[in-house]
Amino acid sequence: MTINEINLGVTCDMHVHVREGAMCELVTPTIRDGGVSVAYIMPNLQPPVTTLDRVIKYKETLQKLSPKTTFLMSFYLSKDLTPELINEAASIGAIHGVKCYPAGVTTNSAAGVDPNDFTAFYPIFKAMEANNIVLNLHGEKPSVSNSTDGNDIHVLNAESKFLPALAKLHNDFPNLKIILEHCTTAEAIRAIEEINKDVTEVSQVKVAATITAHHLHLVIDDWAGNPINFCKPVAKLPSDRRALIKAAISGKPYFFFGSDSAPHPLQNKSKHIGVAAGVFSQLYAIAYVAEIFDEQNALEKLKDFVSTYGLAFYNIHDKDLKCDEKVLLVRKEQTIPETITDGKDIVMAPFMAGQKLNWSTKWI
Amino acid sequence: MTINEINLGVTCDMHVHVREGAMCELVTPTIRDGGVSVAYIMPNLQPPVTTLDRVIKYKETLQKLSPKTTFLMSFYLSKDLTPELINEAASIGAIHGVKCYPAGVTTNSAAGVDPNDFTAFYPIFKAMEANNIVLNLHGEKPSVSNSTDGNDIHVLNAESKFLPALAKLHNDFPNLKIILEHCTTAEAIRAIEEINKDVTEVSQVKVAATITAHHLHLVIDDWAGNPINFCKPVAKLPSDRRALIKAAISGKPYFFFGSDSAPHPLQNKSKHIGVAAGVFSQLYAIAYVAEIFDEQNALEKLKDFVSTYGLAFYNIHDKDLKCDEKVLLVRKEQTIPETITDGKDIVMAPFMAGQKLNWSTKWI
Repeated sequence: MTINEINLGVTCDMHVHVREGAMCELVTPTIRDGGVSVAYIMPNLQPPVTTLDRVIKYKETLQKLSPKTTFLMSFYLSKDLTPELINEAASIGAIHGVKCYPAGVTTNSAAGVDPNDFTAFYPIFKAMEANNIVLNLHGEKPSVSNSTDGNDIHVLNAESKFLPALAKLHNDFPNLKIILEHCTTAEAIRAIEEINKDVTEVSQVKVAATITAHHLHLVIDDWAGNPINFCKPVAKLPSDRRALIKAAISGKPYFFFGSDSAPHPLQNKSKHIGVAAGVFSQLYAIAYVAEIFDEQNALEKLKDFVSTYGLAFYNIHDKDLKCDEKVLLVRKEQTIPETITDGKDIVMAPFMAGQKLNWSTKWI
Repeated sequence: MTINEINLGVTCDMHVHVREGAMCELVTPTIRDGGVSVAYIMPNLQPPVTTLDRVIKYKETLQKLSPKTTFLMSFYLSKDLTPELINEAASIGAIHGVKCYPAGVTTNSAAGVDPNDFTAFYPIFKAMEANNIVLNLHGEKPSVSNSTDGNDIHVLNAESKFLPALAKLHNDFPNLKIILEHCTTAEAIRAIEEINKDVTEVSQVKVAATITAHHLHLVIDDWAGNPINFCKPVAKLPSDRRALIKAAISGKPYFFFGSDSAPHPLQNKSKHIGVAAGVFSQLYAIAYVAEIFDEQNALEKLKDFVSTYGLAFYNIHDKDLKCDEKVLLVRKEQTIPETITDGKDIVMAPFMAGQKLNWSTKWI
């Protein structure tokens, strides 16, 4: 039986970058345009979001730009945070998580932490665990290209090399909710499955992974020579992509959608050196994912991936929503434009620019 | 003892792209500027060089642009070639080799061959073997990113997947001189060493590999986000780079220098999609290599790599040279400019733009 529409309910994208200023004004409304109701907002502004005042004001700004979107906010893990601040932020519902960036691995991560030793942050993690605040991990080790012992770290194995640190964190804080964000490798999928091997229902999940739309589509050949597809972590091998797709359509409650949509002006992508890392996928977020699920004959699992499991992990209920409209996925072809602009200074190239999608979303 | 200068003799770069038209006028003189006496010229023009008339005219053009450079010319392997043409071209010394491009893997390779089956070209190879004409292989299989049996081919394993075809060619034509051009992987180095395991002197070498300057410097992290460093085959992992360096400084006569300098206008490198593959390294070709040999305390092996073994493989003697000047490598710092221009339409970014080199070359 051909499926022509699916009510996806309250969709969520649990990894969203909307920046500040003019870029923020352009991309924040695209969350809703892309068929997403609940968006988890990353804090890697310049400077990063590490105070109550900033996170509250940032959320107010976003809410004005998109009144019907439900924004879940986060702090940026740094030495500026304290357990007291976590307690206070949690008590008033100002944040749902804290994002950990290894120093230097991606856009605006210079203020990040040393992923070889998290112990300095253990008091923070303890406060997060007590308050049910999620730890969002950018799971990559920084590159070491000339190790003397052969233990090189490079863009291909940086995530795999991080996985022991993830296991240790879970071991040390078994009740801390952790997400391995934008996971890209078969090894990461195996690690998440191993951690969850005794999980039988969604409420038991402590460690989850988000999977982006673009990593379901891309492999290394797609970004080699195409900076539009260059992001961190980089898309890996075809076997990794297959593992990600298998996880996304698996119906396992510890894999859910986070687009990691990361907008950059076209002039920062069209460079011969120092290309900005990030794929802008917000405007067609749900449709990109639907395309893959359709190819895999797994559309019946799509709602779990883009709604149910993310909402459950973050404990989001109807009362928390800004808007009770639902997303209807419809089989209706659309062509992605070559560029998107605010009509002023910003021009961006969206993911899969110029290509066709078989699915669209509308609000009901 | 500190070495401050080395007489490198008659240097050679056995893999050079100089294009046609304005780009050719700009880059052909840079062969000599970069400290190279003998240059093996690749035939991937548009359309490719497949006739006596074209190869002779192309050589005349180059010779006018750089009278003191010795140009070794090549045909592009395609169905336009015949054994009779190989015989004729060899008899008048018009070509030294035939370059084989797998269809679609790099710049101007659309007219290339199917590397899964070379048998259609066996009569050509037989004529080449009889005439001591070299077969230059771009050793990559085309990508297959969605194989049903898990045998994916992608930019990282494309060279490794080609190696059995190399072994078969050598087996079928044991006296055909073959070069695995711009090899990039530890596996390729091992394959070349295996083929040459009984070789004790340079005159016995039938199968060699060229190594570029940039692959001695780069790993995958260097081109991820830096299209200036994007080329085919792509630079691989740190362990591969170490294997290339080890081979280059090994003093083994089946490894020698071929820069694969591949000029592209900056606007074809600074793109968000469809970046031209190629690194322009001609202007500092020998100095880039010297830098690595110096780091490895192996400067005494440099002449073998950039002169002796390449000349021996192609059987080039003093009588074949356009100029008897030698290259002196001197310890003299130079800064690579951010861009190079012909003052008219062409702007290019050279390899390691803006960085310093400790070595320079001059003619004596």
